[in-house]
Amino acid sequence: MTTPSDRRPGTGDIVLSVDAMGGDKGPAAVVAGLKLFLDGEPDARVLLHGRAAELEPEIARRGIGGAVTIVDAAEVVSMDDKPAQVMRRGKGTSMWSAIDAVRDGRAQACVSCGNTGALMAVSMLRLRKLDGVDRPAIAALWPSRSPAGFNVVLDMGADIRADEQDLLAYALMGASYARNGLGIERPRVGLLNVGTEEHKGRAELKVAHEIIGRVAPKGGYDYIGFVEGSDLPSDRVDVIVTDGFTGNVALKTGEGTARLVIDQLRAALTSTPLAAAGAFLARGALRRLQERIDPRRVNGGVFLGLAGTVIKSHGSSDETGVAAALGLAYRLAGLGFAERLAARVASAAALAQDAASGGPMPPQGDEDAR
Amino acid sequence: MTTPSDRRPGTGDIVLSVDAMGGDKGPAAVVAGLKLFLDGEPDARVLLHGRAAELEPEIARRGIGGAVTIVDAAEVVSMDDKPAQVMRRGKGTSMWSAIDAVRDGRAQACVSCGNTGALMAVSMLRLRKLDGVDRPAIAALWPSRSPAGFNVVLDMGADIRADEQDLLAYALMGASYARNGLGIERPRVGLLNVGTEEHKGRAELKVAHEIIGRVAPKGGYDYIGFVEGSDLPSDRVDVIVTDGFTGNVALKTGEGTARLVIDQLRAALTSTPLAAAGAFLARGALRRLQERIDPRRVNGGVFLGLAGTVIKSHGSSDETGVAAALGLAYRLAGLGFAERLAARVASAAALAQDAASGGPMPPQGDEDAR
Repeated sequence: MTTPSDRRPGTGDIVLSVDAMGGDKGPAAVVAGLKLFLDGEPDARVLLHGRAAELEPEIARRGIGGAVTIVDAAEVVSMDDKPAQVMRRGKGTSMWSAIDAVRDGRAQACVSCGNTGALMAVSMLRLRKLDGVDRPAIAALWPSRSPAGFNVVLDMGADIRADEQDLLAYALMGASYARNGLGIERPRVGLLNVGTEEHKGRAELKVAHEIIGRVAPKGGYDYIGFVEGSDLPSDRVDVIVTDGFTGNVALKTGEGTARLVIDQLRAALTSTPLAAAGAFLARGALRRLQERIDPRRVNGGVFLGLAGTVIKSHGSSDETGVAAALGLAYRLAGLGFAERLAARVASAAALAQDAASGGPMPPQGDEDAR
Repeated sequence: MTTPSDRRPGTGDIVLSVDAMGGDKGPAAVVAGLKLFLDGEPDARVLLHGRAAELEPEIARRGIGGAVTIVDAAEVVSMDDKPAQVMRRGKGTSMWSAIDAVRDGRAQACVSCGNTGALMAVSMLRLRKLDGVDRPAIAALWPSRSPAGFNVVLDMGADIRADEQDLLAYALMGASYARNGLGIERPRVGLLNVGTEEHKGRAELKVAHEIIGRVAPKGGYDYIGFVEGSDLPSDRVDVIVTDGFTGNVALKTGEGTARLVIDQLRAALTSTPLAAAGAFLARGALRRLQERIDPRRVNGGVFLGLAGTVIKSHGSSDETGVAAALGLAYRLAGLGFAERLAARVASAAALAQDAASGGPMPPQGDEDAR
């Protein structure tokens, strides 16, 4: 196993692998985001995968040729391609090429705006799953009242099923992500259910409730028990664990609802001349609000459970969104997150079996303590 | 079976049965809501169930004794009571008494702010389930971009499971509710999933997708296929069908997210003197916005699938919320909704079995056409 190296942001040792194709807005938006990111992190190095003939003029125009190396890949995964097709025939695509750079150790993290299902399928094919992980997960940052400003929610849709062992793995991985990505030393983990009473919910949730609680000391998190949908933006929990079906519906419902409220606010503030005048006076505060709740700012679902860091940027990401995803990848790569997570899950995997069978609990480790 | 009577709003023939106890804010909030409702509907008649000694002075103080008859009930179902306990020992409670008034035909609809689980359990015990319904559902109105301003979402948490036949029943009942409650002649029904592609999602969803589509002509709705979480507030669908686990998480996630955005808006508009001045100028528009997205305005989950109309008002309802729930109950009672729904489901029940087994499809009926 690789060990956390001495790679640190600002030393020029960190290389990101970026899929330039496949997003809704095309490679120009990715390169624009890359420029924005490199303005803030001039020491970062980037492998940019895609059609060289299209990418070269964009790179030259932005003046970022010093930090960026183009890796030519002729084919593109479209949003409509089925994951199984891409697994069979996707070898020449920019997505495949971007993931292989992480697999081969040429880069420490991969970022793509492409088709989520295909990205997860190729990631699972080319980067093996970690020991102790049966189903990898996608973790999202959810705007919240917590001091960090965000809660971690997983799985957001890597798999529509999750049994109790999967949910335990999500708890361990989500806690590790909160520790490394958000700097929360001892994250509070909650299990999503329809009520906080212990007698409620599906059978597998009752078993998971038991196991996640028993593994907490070794997992380096505090287990606060069941939480509800209303807790996703709350400050009583840092990591919310659920299956990918429920997580995906919750994410999209939350996004859709926030967008509805914001659109109605915009309509209200242009409905009368007086309202428009008021909006003009308050424009600074309203812009800061918009930035605070802007989903592009926290763009990037992190794939957890694979031997390598892969970040899915939103398909419709513009340069702000792409830059945010690159910033997250850079931070995680600098922390050696992939190695820390692997160590944490490996040591907890055997333990989980013990917990499931009611065996003894060794003392707490600190594999990914900071 | 009872038939739709000639009871109509404004004729004094409609009687609502109201549980005065069990809400977080106590009977004073319920009576205040009752006053607000009766101001707009002076012909309505109300049976108010609870402790007469507490209720009498409230009724007298509000001057609504002419429309309200108190039904004394000494006991109260608390928010912590387990449904099974209430089913065994709840006979003397105001909740039980309120439901029995519908059972006995003394009232046409019941409203309670109490414990949801207990209210559903007692409703199922005292009002029988409709033919063709295995699992009753709770339907909520969700703020949306649709012309009606709301979409119907069910099940919001009556049961955490739902198989394909349950999902079909939800489609039929949700469409009937949209027709009668929102005046949408031919509602568009969608099935909640993690993607709109047919190959995605859980096995029971694929079967339900098939059945709900085949029953559409007889059910009086248009089936638009799979929808996603982002469609809950959209204008491409009127009725969203899902299991009670997913529906409950989605509802609470949406509520929590909307509340976060509104709180942050409020904070932004008091953050600087200039912003506060702008908010003052725009106060009319902002107040209208607040009213538009105020969850109290659409307060009331309707229990569907029982021989009688029962509406669950939010536990923390204040007078505005209680009045909204009473208004909904009054409208549905005036339309003979319980009878229309029963007729629709009964005629579709046999059909559903046919659909499941691939049998022929009789021509469309109009049992609850308006």
